[in-house]
Amino acid sequence: MSGKVVLVGAGPGAVDLITVRGANALARADVVVYDRLVAPPLLDLAPSRAERVYVGKEPGRAAMPQRAIDELLVREALAGREVVRLKGGDPFVFGRGGEEMRACTDAGVEVEVVPGVTSAIAAPAAAGIPLTHRGVSRSFAVVTGSTAHAEDTGDLARIATATDTLVVLMAAGKLAETCATLVAAGRAPSTPAAVVQWAWTAEERIVAGTLADLPALATAAIVGPPATLVVGEVITVPGVRQAPAGRARSTPREAIPPAASHTSPSVR
Amino acid sequence: MSGKVVLVGAGPGAVDLITVRGANALARADVVVYDRLVAPPLLDLAPSRAERVYVGKEPGRAAMPQRAIDELLVREALAGREVVRLKGGDPFVFGRGGEEMRACTDAGVEVEVVPGVTSAIAAPAAAGIPLTHRGVSRSFAVVTGSTAHAEDTGDLARIATATDTLVVLMAAGKLAETCATLVAAGRAPSTPAAVVQWAWTAEERIVAGTLADLPALATAAIVGPPATLVVGEVITVPGVRQAPAGRARSTPREAIPPAASHTSPSVR
Repeated sequence: MSGKVVLVGAGPGAVDLITVRGANALARADVVVYDRLVAPPLLDLAPSRAERVYVGKEPGRAAMPQRAIDELLVREALAGREVVRLKGGDPFVFGRGGEEMRACTDAGVEVEVVPGVTSAIAAPAAAGIPLTHRGVSRSFAVVTGSTAHAEDTGDLARIATATDTLVVLMAAGKLAETCATLVAAGRAPSTPAAVVQWAWTAEERIVAGTLADLPALATAAIVGPPATLVVGEVITVPGVRQAPAGRARSTPREAIPPAASHTSPSVR
Repeated sequence: MSGKVVLVGAGPGAVDLITVRGANALARADVVVYDRLVAPPLLDLAPSRAERVYVGKEPGRAAMPQRAIDELLVREALAGREVVRLKGGDPFVFGRGGEEMRACTDAGVEVEVVPGVTSAIAAPAAAGIPLTHRGVSRSFAVVTGSTAHAEDTGDLARIATATDTLVVLMAAGKLAETCATLVAAGRAPSTPAAVVQWAWTAEERIVAGTLADLPALATAAIVGPPATLVVGEVITVPGVRQAPAGRARSTPREAIPPAASHTSPSVR
């Protein structure tokens, strides 16, 4: 009997923001291969007999190389197991789902994709920020903070003024560089900008300001990863939940239970 | 006792691609206000006593005006009912969720947002197309086909070459204009492009080609709404399910194998 690999989007943070199909796949899993940004209670949806394998990257530690993850998925499926590859957000948005899908098909392993709620949309939504809004925004783009590297800002500069709304995933590490690049590329310093950390979890924090002052506000509020940056006039749509610029909801970082919650079972 | 409004993303088409939280909100609903692109079986998740109100637009008929929808949501919540506003995809991606949220907050009505799986990501995923892929795409933008109106192609032209991957929702009606605008704005005519109709339903169809030949291929295949266009090199990532560029899977609608195709080892 041959197994299969199911690439499942875990959603943006809360356990019940996984899809029904994703939850059902977990309930059938023999093996769950998961990342750091997966809500820990999601692992409880798998049968107790299921093996749980952590392959995420901890800050300061090496992650399992992608090739090793690919090989693990293929090996377990070829051994007849139903493997759920559980990835934060959506598997096909900066999740290397395409690479894992390809590794499976190359090896003749059946692979199924279960899309998930991406943080690119859901993290702003946690702050009440719609990515589009009639008369305000009718387009958005999504990139990661890594495109703000000093030696390579081409992508970000090109995208800066192309869409009404811009979302930057994994934005915490390069927040100042990102905002500076956007301004240098033609976005007004007064453009509204907000960062949402740990969206849809108990540790959720939102800091709002402008491209000019958000980096300082975020630093003052000690905002770290995981964080999503959203830029554009949609932030000022009345009704959004975030604190006004300069009045961040700023829990000190020390008070945030770190990946502790994420360290649960697994690892081999 | 005061009610509330829950803006729920129904996901891209299949009933089990709603989130667990969204399904739970439906199970508690007194009133469900829904659109045309909501999978009909989702309505069965609401209690039989729940009132179901259709406010979507049929081709050729007028939809309920947005203001009337806003008033309906507010009125039902103020009457003490739990109202689920069920919207295809995600409520904050071209779904007017922001307007409905604002109408509720303006009226002092409690409003909750439950994000959903957007077709912008999930329709390409149905065809095995990842929006990002290492070495191929590290950015994507999302717009609607309405930005391709002849009298107003500014948005689309500006976005055309900004991101590696481009997704156009509601693309069927203006497919030729959209592809032409993208080419006029600097995208190579040979850029891979695919259209996915009725993603994640039994009627799903995928037609793949290039910006140059996709409109003709789609016309030959009689592709109509609802359809999502995806443009970029990600379409050629090996392992994706659709036919190679220029060799569209133009199966007649009647002959399409159902969602079963999502579980097959792909590549045809």
